[in-house]
Amino acid sequence: MEERLKKQMEFLLEVDKEKFIGRQTYLSDGIRKENDAEHAWHLALTAALLAEYSEEKIDLAKTMLMVLVHDLVEIDAGDTYAYDAVGNQTKRERELKAADRIFNILPEDQAKMLRLLWDEFEEQQTPEAKFAHVCDNIQPLMLNHATGGKSWRERGIKKSQVLKRNERTGEGSKTMESYVHEIIDLNVEKGNLKDE
Amino acid sequence: MEERLKKQMEFLLEVDKEKFIGRQTYLSDGIRKENDAEHAWHLALTAALLAEYSEEKIDLAKTMLMVLVHDLVEIDAGDTYAYDAVGNQTKRERELKAADRIFNILPEDQAKMLRLLWDEFEEQQTPEAKFAHVCDNIQPLMLNHATGGKSWRERGIKKSQVLKRNERTGEGSKTMESYVHEIIDLNVEKGNLKDE
Ligand SMILES: [Ca+2]
Repeated sequence: MEERLKKQMEFLLEVDKEKFIGRQTYLSDGIRKENDAEHAWHLALTAALLAEYSEEKIDLAKTMLMVLVHDLVEIDAGDTYAYDAVGNQTKRERELKAADRIFNILPEDQAKMLRLLWDEFEEQQTPEAKFAHVCDNIQPLMLNHATGGKSWRERGIKKSQVLKRNERTGEGSKTMESYVHEIIDLNVEKGNLKDE
Repeated sequence: MEERLKKQMEFLLEVDKEKFIGRQTYLSDGIRKENDAEHAWHLALTAALLAEYSEEKIDLAKTMLMVLVHDLVEIDAGDTYAYDAVGNQTKRERELKAADRIFNILPEDQAKMLRLLWDEFEEQQTPEAKFAHVCDNIQPLMLNHATGGKSWRERGIKKSQVLKRNERTGEGSKTMESYVHEIIDLNVEKGNLKDE
């Protein structure tokens, strides 16, 4: 096998580990929690089917690849819950170290390509990165709504925290920002989110 | 919420069920088996990173979306193991019925778009469909190889069965066909596949 293909296959095997990285969101059965690979698959489908609501035209292949790889760093750094203040202080450093190791398993050109895509996601400035964040925010919201706010209730999450997480959602999609507000209000009404 | 977005969100919630559809392939830890959503995520990444080996130029967004949705019908029809002869006799009928229900949750234009994409995958005639099948064949092969052929051993799978499954891999990629043969030979040597 050529050296290039060998590196690519080594990377594809390494990323299998993303399937073991647990998130805090319950799946629609309300029993098992999602893992990062399932989450990324769901985001790519979300991006493809809701692209029409992006404020700016997006390159779909780029957006899908961006969401498919956006959590790979968590193989080393672990998932940091969106509402974990302490964990989020060290998150950036842990994830940068992970990015250096994981992407560089690939041949240099592809390592660079994925690293740029991940940086772009993190910086949230381009149309694709903004819309990728829209998807990353609404998918767990949808699952939380479907499970009666189970993970919100368990952690006593406040409306203001979900609003804060979504403060830039409107930059990517005004339509999906309205969706977020509609779902938040419904869940405050039901007592799934604290009205604070 | 607009009727269109409502249907799209209903579909995105429905497909969450793909995360509960188990496959026969063990993950790289050799303990847990993969589910369809994890598999589809892995295929989309595989398509993106190995596209250079496709015999014909492929539209990457189309290929990624194709692999992301290729197993959605299994939400109703269940996963049919590639080497289950009896199950494969009724597979087509079960999957057609599932496609009618699941894709039609979406607004008509998107239902049609995904249905055409699934049909195209099944027919395996276009460059994208051929390469999607390459990915769908090599990903479990890679995992089987990584786990010492665990699921092959448990079921007494023969070299000839894996070759048969891969009889059209070369149409999509000669390079990946060579990879398949290399991995098969290694696993016959190790006794993970029967030399028949
Ligand atoms: Ca994350």
